[in-house]
Amino acid sequence: MISPIPQTVSLCLSGERFRIVYRLGGSRGEAQARANDICLEQTVEFPEELVPSGPIRDEVVGRVESLEPITEKAFRAVISFPIEVVGDDLSQLLNVVLGNISLKPAIRAEKLDLPESILQQFRGPRFGRKGLRERTGVVHRPLLSTALKPMGLAPADLAELAYRFALGGVDLIKDDHGLTNQTFCRFEERVDRCAEAVARANRQTGLKCAYLPNVTATPVEMLRRARYAKSAGAGGLLICPGLTGLDAMRAVADDDQVSLPIVAHPAFQGSFVVRPDEGFSHPLLFGQLARLAGADATIFPNFGGRFSFTREECCEIAAATEAPLGTLHPIFPAPAGGLTLARVPEVQQVFGREMVILVGGGLFKHGPDLVENCRVFRKLAEQF
Amino acid sequence: MISPIPQTVSLCLSGERFRIVYRLGGSRGEAQARANDICLEQTVEFPEELVPSGPIRDEVVGRVESLEPITEKAFRAVISFPIEVVGDDLSQLLNVVLGNISLKPAIRAEKLDLPESILQQFRGPRFGRKGLRERTGVVHRPLLSTALKPMGLAPADLAELAYRFALGGVDLIKDDHGLTNQTFCRFEERVDRCAEAVARANRQTGLKCAYLPNVTATPVEMLRRARYAKSAGAGGLLICPGLTGLDAMRAVADDDQVSLPIVAHPAFQGSFVVRPDEGFSHPLLFGQLARLAGADATIFPNFGGRFSFTREECCEIAAATEAPLGTLHPIFPAPAGGLTLARVPEVQQVFGREMVILVGGGLFKHGPDLVENCRVFRKLAEQF
Repeated sequence: MISPIPQTVSLCLSGERFRIVYRLGGSRGEAQARANDICLEQTVEFPEELVPSGPIRDEVVGRVESLEPITEKAFRAVISFPIEVVGDDLSQLLNVVLGNISLKPAIRAEKLDLPESILQQFRGPRFGRKGLRERTGVVHRPLLSTALKPMGLAPADLAELAYRFALGGVDLIKDDHGLTNQTFCRFEERVDRCAEAVARANRQTGLKCAYLPNVTATPVEMLRRARYAKSAGAGGLLICPGLTGLDAMRAVADDDQVSLPIVAHPAFQGSFVVRPDEGFSHPLLFGQLARLAGADATIFPNFGGRFSFTREECCEIAAATEAPLGTLHPIFPAPAGGLTLARVPEVQQVFGREMVILVGGGLFKHGPDLVENCRVFRKLAEQF
Repeated sequence: MISPIPQTVSLCLSGERFRIVYRLGGSRGEAQARANDICLEQTVEFPEELVPSGPIRDEVVGRVESLEPITEKAFRAVISFPIEVVGDDLSQLLNVVLGNISLKPAIRAEKLDLPESILQQFRGPRFGRKGLRERTGVVHRPLLSTALKPMGLAPADLAELAYRFALGGVDLIKDDHGLTNQTFCRFEERVDRCAEAVARANRQTGLKCAYLPNVTATPVEMLRRARYAKSAGAGGLLICPGLTGLDAMRAVADDDQVSLPIVAHPAFQGSFVVRPDEGFSHPLLFGQLARLAGADATIFPNFGGRFSFTREECCEIAAATEAPLGTLHPIFPAPAGGLTLARVPEVQQVFGREMVILVGGGLFKHGPDLVENCRVFRKLAEQF
């Protein structure tokens, strides 16, 4: 057949490739077919027999570097792609990793292996573990965090909560991720009042507690809110990258006018990990991708809470927050979701000192005096 | 127990509520527990016993309006929330629909029932079916679409492809969604050349073919590219809202300087629908949400192609593109993914005239003369 493709300009690539590890379901034959399919679907998206010979067929199309059994019905494939297909943004990297193939069953992206040439396009976390420790003045122990809630409280009452938490020695006080700009709790008033309340508590305690408003919104508005928060004295930001897009979070992280630590919240990202054979592995989504997208701490549902992550998955996330990733800073894992003070020692045993412990509702449950509850929380962390 | 919650400001809500239909797995007892959990998790995210009495407990917390069996192991729950919790953006609506509960198994959001008070916050599709027909001059038949590919071709060669497609009578020529701003195919050069090639063909044919570049990118850059495309003569835009976030697509749709039809591509959205008991229903994601986010046509993998959607799921999407949704325009369903010309009559039988038929690789396969292939494609559509 005569090729219907006009090709007058020859393609010149560097030859450098990056690798993605996939988990593929099925027999060896089925897994091999899925691997071959990924090579085409994620690049040329073209019938194999029509792909022009030369560099498009030999280099642009993905290449199955290896295929090894995990179980009898699942294989691990390493597939490489030329670095040039990623272009210049995170969106297109994500598209190569899991764009069209998200629509096909039994394919899970497990891990990225990116060369320096791609990694240097990403600024990554602006602060990371070291920067967050410097800003909060916490040298050795885990950072303590809690959330302003429940939704329905007015800014004045949330500010009173923030004041009590800060007085009790919590390090990072974040908005609950459902607080945005509701009529009963306007963003600006909330941020003004809560930032002031935390600053007032800090003057009394001499501590460096930070207030982190939730700026999750449509991208332009998110950047505006982030800059507002900075000017109002917020010490960091909460963003749900599942709702905004990872690249939108990255834009806030990269903004020099904002220049605040970012805590990433997992809302709306569950569909990517809720099944073990599709979407992303936990450490890829909440570890590698969160870092590439500029988060300084990554919240995920802890094992044994009201969500469904296993202890092993949580530990894999924690490992990915500090695994080498070019020159990108390690970030804090932030296990959360139904934690109580009683579970703090266990959580510390599992994750060690290098984390943010996020106790939300559980901090209210311990007793009627919130300041005292926070002091108990802090003592538990200091004893570790 | 004394409540630890300070509440000095009383909450005043309108009393108006919106409804979300969920499919919940498990026995009746389990489904009821999941429904109750959604009510708390998606609003106050607080231990039930600590939720303050009064309007927060009575109104902010979701309310299970009904729970009916679908099968022995699945129930349909209608849950209502006060309109005020949605705040002022699509992100927070998505957060209420499937934020934290995306992290829990056996919960699928099936449908939104939004009152006028929420719908009027959304401009929705700027053109819709009627506007797209006006711009392309296609009165009765389905609109014909194809894609510029394979990745690896230079702008000059993609422009030559675009020219042949336009000469053959295709209505909408889109970039393949993997074309962004790669070194071998820079965005500006591609858009300049392809828009010029399509304009040249239009002058020869007297037709109104539109070129739709892919502007998927980090949000600010996406808006810049969309405006550039407009000034270069593009007739529409391709956006992957899974990669950019739905709200970022909406921002482009709402931008008066851009003012171009938007075709939404499903890349990276598969994890939300790939399992029948989690994430979103097909019509909610590719129908209702695509419209709320401003798409004028919504691409989805057709049944019987190389993806896994069923015929029923595809028909549900098509129905949702025209179901009443306030004053928002109906949009075109755009079945795609491995379609061949041989299947065009069958696709038309199923979806009728009100659609965009997207044949990509299949258009290259029909024979070596692309212009002739397009004429066959067009004749098939005109015969219907």
